[in-house]
Amino acid sequence: MKIGILSSGGDCPGINATIRGVGKTAITQYGMEVVGIHGGFSGLLNRDVEPLDEHSLSGILNLGGTILGTSREKGFREMLTSPDQEQSLLITQAYEELGLDCLVCIGGNGTQKTTNLLAQHGLHVIGLPKTIDNDIWGTEITFGFDTAVNIATEAIDRLHSTASSHKRVMLVEVMGHRAGWIALYAGMAGGADVILLPELGFDIQKINEAICHRAQKGKPHSIVVVAEGLKMPDKKKATDFLTHEIEAATGIETRKTVLGYIQRGGNPSPFDRILATRLGGYATELIAKGQFGCMVCVKDNRIDSIPLSEVAGKLKLVTPEHDLVVQGKRMGISFGV
Amino acid sequence: MKIGILSSGGDCPGINATIRGVGKTAITQYGMEVVGIHGGFSGLLNRDVEPLDEHSLSGILNLGGTILGTSREKGFREMLTSPDQEQSLLITQAYEELGLDCLVCIGGNGTQKTTNLLAQHGLHVIGLPKTIDNDIWGTEITFGFDTAVNIATEAIDRLHSTASSHKRVMLVEVMGHRAGWIALYAGMAGGADVILLPELGFDIQKINEAICHRAQKGKPHSIVVVAEGLKMPDKKKATDFLTHEIEAATGIETRKTVLGYIQRGGNPSPFDRILATRLGGYATELIAKGQFGCMVCVKDNRIDSIPLSEVAGKLKLVTPEHDLVVQGKRMGISFGV
Amino acid sequence: MKIGILSSGGDCPGINATIRGVGKTAITQYGMEVVGIHGGFSGLLNRDVEPLDEHSLSGILNLGGTILGTSREKGFREMLTSPDQEQSLLITQAYEELGLDCLVCIGGNGTQKTTNLLAQHGLHVIGLPKTIDNDIWGTEITFGFDTAVNIATEAIDRLHSTASSHKRVMLVEVMGHRAGWIALYAGMAGGADVILLPELGFDIQKINEAICHRAQKGKPHSIVVVAEGLKMPDKKKATDFLTHEIEAATGIETRKTVLGYIQRGGNPSPFDRILATRLGGYATELIAKGQFGCMVCVKDNRIDSIPLSEVAGKLKLVTPEHDLVVQGKRMGISFGV
Amino acid sequence: MKIGILSSGGDCPGINATIRGVGKTAITQYGMEVVGIHGGFSGLLNRDVEPLDEHSLSGILNLGGTILGTSREKGFREMLTSPDQEQSLLITQAYEELGLDCLVCIGGNGTQKTTNLLAQHGLHVIGLPKTIDNDIWGTEITFGFDTAVNIATEAIDRLHSTASSHKRVMLVEVMGHRAGWIALYAGMAGGADVILLPELGFDIQKINEAICHRAQKGKPHSIVVVAEGLKMPDKKKATDFLTHEIEAATGIETRKTVLGYIQRGGNPSPFDRILATRLGGYATELIAKGQFGCMVCVKDNRIDSIPLSEVAGKLKLVTPEHDLVVQGKRMGISFGV
Repeated sequence: MKIGILSSGGDCPGINATIRGVGKTAITQYGMEVVGIHGGFSGLLNRDVEPLDEHSLSGILNLGGTILGTSREKGFREMLTSPDQEQSLLITQAYEELGLDCLVCIGGNGTQKTTNLLAQHGLHVIGLPKTIDNDIWGTEITFGFDTAVNIATEAIDRLHSTASSHKRVMLVEVMGHRAGWIALYAGMAGGADVILLPELGFDIQKINEAICHRAQKGKPHSIVVVAEGLKMPDKKKATDFLTHEIEAATGIETRKTVLGYIQRGGNPSPFDRILATRLGGYATELIAKGQFGCMVCVKDNRIDSIPLSEVAGKLKLVTPEHDLVVQGKRMGISFGV
Repeated sequence: MKIGILSSGGDCPGINATIRGVGKTAITQYGMEVVGIHGGFSGLLNRDVEPLDEHSLSGILNLGGTILGTSREKGFREMLTSPDQEQSLLITQAYEELGLDCLVCIGGNGTQKTTNLLAQHGLHVIGLPKTIDNDIWGTEITFGFDTAVNIATEAIDRLHSTASSHKRVMLVEVMGHRAGWIALYAGMAGGADVILLPELGFDIQKINEAICHRAQKGKPHSIVVVAEGLKMPDKKKATDFLTHEIEAATGIETRKTVLGYIQRGGNPSPFDRILATRLGGYATELIAKGQFGCMVCVKDNRIDSIPLSEVAGKLKLVTPEHDLVVQGKRMGISFGV
Repeated sequence: MKIGILSSGGDCPGINATIRGVGKTAITQYGMEVVGIHGGFSGLLNRDVEPLDEHSLSGILNLGGTILGTSREKGFREMLTSPDQEQSLLITQAYEELGLDCLVCIGGNGTQKTTNLLAQHGLHVIGLPKTIDNDIWGTEITFGFDTAVNIATEAIDRLHSTASSHKRVMLVEVMGHRAGWIALYAGMAGGADVILLPELGFDIQKINEAICHRAQKGKPHSIVVVAEGLKMPDKKKATDFLTHEIEAATGIETRKTVLGYIQRGGNPSPFDRILATRLGGYATELIAKGQFGCMVCVKDNRIDSIPLSEVAGKLKLVTPEHDLVVQGKRMGISFGV
Repeated sequence: MKIGILSSGGDCPGINATIRGVGKTAITQYGMEVVGIHGGFSGLLNRDVEPLDEHSLSGILNLGGTILGTSREKGFREMLTSPDQEQSLLITQAYEELGLDCLVCIGGNGTQKTTNLLAQHGLHVIGLPKTIDNDIWGTEITFGFDTAVNIATEAIDRLHSTASSHKRVMLVEVMGHRAGWIALYAGMAGGADVILLPELGFDIQKINEAICHRAQKGKPHSIVVVAEGLKMPDKKKATDFLTHEIEAATGIETRKTVLGYIQRGGNPSPFDRILATRLGGYATELIAKGQFGCMVCVKDNRIDSIPLSEVAGKLKLVTPEHDLVVQGKRMGISFGV
């Protein structure tokens, strides 16, 4: 049996750990042949592959990024939905010429959608969910998220000392375009005073009240955690607006920090290495059992799988009823609404 | 309403986060009165208490250790089971004199047992599970565990470079008297080649074979992770025995490292801060609802509670069927059996 | 004898360690009285002081920020240079009313200037150099710098994995308004390919050539470290310009990260704790010997002192002949000139 | 011109950075040919070499251990001092057959001694000082030391929380056989209460007094940092003795932690990467100038060189007059004497 592995979309700590999990299980337990496909789906079309063996899978468990490289997949997905059937034929031909019995696709929401299309075209595929944003439908958690929360929380820890020494409001923008998971977790772990999530929106009055309320109790400094995807009526990003408005309304010096790419790079946390290893190993189990067309996932704290057709096109968002939001409110943390 | 909080047994990252979770929720959401009891159960007898308010609960989220101090509880537990009923009366009197409506007891297995005894004596109590060992029955995970795994994994990461530069076998002993959870998780996250757990025991032949097998494939260095509680017929600890035996049998230089207390100290990881906050907040919810006599826990990845009577006296151990053990074996990691 | 301590200007890891160094030496070795002045020089005018004893100096060695708070000092300095001598009289009166025998001023370049003015007004003062920027004249190194370099280097380490997985140019802007020390050290420690310093300026052609040269050798990804003070003819900051120009000229996707305030917060590194402790202790030695009007410093790797009059108004900048710049060039690192 | 590089003795963070510094400077600046010799001096005899080029020197700056491997050198050194001149001839023949114009030897005190012997046999050699112990004569600092101090200090930071939560004395044994540099620096950076160095010895009475003195002031917990080489009349190591004696004499629960090998593994700190790069680059400069027979070093905070004949056989030890010892005493830290 021969399986191909590729990674697609943004890089994320733990991809190499999951490649290792898939590959080592396949080789050691089942004697399968494993090939890595370079540069995401485009590498499939280009037959840009390398055999993965024990040697190439060694020493990568704690390595950030992806040894297989990655690329955007929009064009590839369009080939699969094109009315011109020649297009998708190019893909199935590549799959067959490479002699694959299954293709494991590591990626985020877009990748799961593409992988589902491949399944619909009759290929044997397994989706492996990966994103620091933790917004993939059908799994309680994705690897990369814990590492990102660690980095963001460490940054917030650092900002506390500047905030209190200078009696400032410190805004910190963390990743999360549509989902506020990183902001919610890093905010709660970092002891933020205000946490703003794209899903909940915000009312600038409420934010200013929360900050002034603290100042009245003798704490002029506050930490505000903002998800980058926080929307405003007219702009895309809210961080600059908030920095200006809070300073103007409260009279407290306000400074912003945008964490950016450091949240997605570097060595995965032990938690993410374990999760990535488990999901990878489970993917190989599914292949051995001939169960294709699904995504491996975490359900009720256990590794499981879910049909790709149930996952594709959906997004896992924070709801106002999420127990961590509710718990934050009970402790007096403002969510700006 | 007035609630008391105490921490008992070994210290553990996240205790302060959970004290804050209980206290801030009680004060902000319910206007309850909260007192901290110093030095564990003995502080209850000595009425050694301090009021906890927003100020004293501030800035402790990421602080290691416990602001309330701790102590051994064996003597206290004996008072509760003594045939001399005067003994336990001293305890219930203390509870009443302090005017408590509920006592929240943060601790490990022993503490849950003691807390259950307090419940049987008619006190309103909530157990809050805390241990780096992750061996408390009735909860999928305890706070402190993730931090301990992080520290142990970081140490293993460091030992890899010495192992490969010197072509040595590096043994590392991690905490875990009866349960091998830290060894299992840190071993899997650290890319260990051999992982030895108290629950599974070991066969020295199998260990040596695994190391020699690696050497034959061109990898003379190996990492062996050993839980401190690993038993031998005649001795208490196996690390020294193993260091000697492996070197003698394989001819490869073998060195040991005992991580010790650094695994339980220092700042909690973001994961542990979140978990501790959630469990603490949920404890207060239970108090508000008048649900006593139980321990807060994690079940199917959700915060829940379980009667203390079901928890007391049991231990959560690694089984050979645990999915992470099985996954490790599939990848060729030796468990020494 | 009674000494006052204050911190002024931006916060910086190690201030608390140096306060502790001054204070513990004064109390333990000399039995001096020590008072902390809150909120920088304005606290002197407001007599906003607290006695510092062994208890208040305990547990602060590894704490970020400053327990004394800080403030801007421009207004205060103007009082000292005002033709209206009533102004400066307010300051000397405050000093006398507080009964101080010496005032230790912890701060950056501006603070050393102000402290020199105080000396010229006849006060007993000692300057203690502090800045993450490492740009204070008269000392080989300042505490805070090592910590900032650690944080920036860790960030660059993280960006490497995204750069290589995505085959991108990653720009990272680090602190340093006029001096490029952090960029130089973090760039060299982080394995940057291009390092841009305010002192050297840049030629966009040279930068693009360096990146293309790498791409031709099979390395399409590059790391560019930019000091925030890098000047352009028409704009203040160069990072946005560079991101756009590099992508346009090289055709390689280019992304920027601005590290910002996380570089100055959080726990000081062991190196900075030691340096801050030494400088603080030496300040107290000078006081005990009655040597005022100078700044403690590092000269030829030894703790020493230098007259404030020699320090005030000067800036320590990177020169093209600095051995680390020269070494970088020898290894093929581009400095964009 | 062709230069060979080898690493000998214990591994140490920064070796790869210095190999890169030597090699990249040689290749880029001077177009020299560079070969890496595997497994230390024995690799020279075995002609076990590989060419080092830009590719093999890339990505190793922040890697722990040594890509060239290492070995003990005692046998090799004996060949050089053997009355049987055939022995040393084997070595000079190897040097010549490999066509080397210079051999760069990275190692500790033993290696500098061996390298000096090679110089006396007429070979062109440069010594490159490397040790976490910082005990090489002739240089103010060695790379590896800062990383080791960081790791030991982080461990001490962690032990503080257990010490204070449990009101215990926590002993921590750090590396340093003959020299107490790590103990001195990590002890001072970690806020230790007692620091014990091999060079100063100890008086158990003085240690107990220091701990009791703290207890009397309301601080029953203490941190004691012990260099592993601390001597006792009858035993080799003092840690076990001290743990027992302190508990017996003070009545305070006392626990020990032995840090061991984690101090020498893992990624080098930015400080060590810079230092290693500078020393490596300077070694290549010396080769280009034809200055052989010396060790690169740090003198008065500047990179310099010193004849190997002045270095060989000496040891840099902590003296009671060292300014950091003196400063520690002034702050009330006990050195047990």
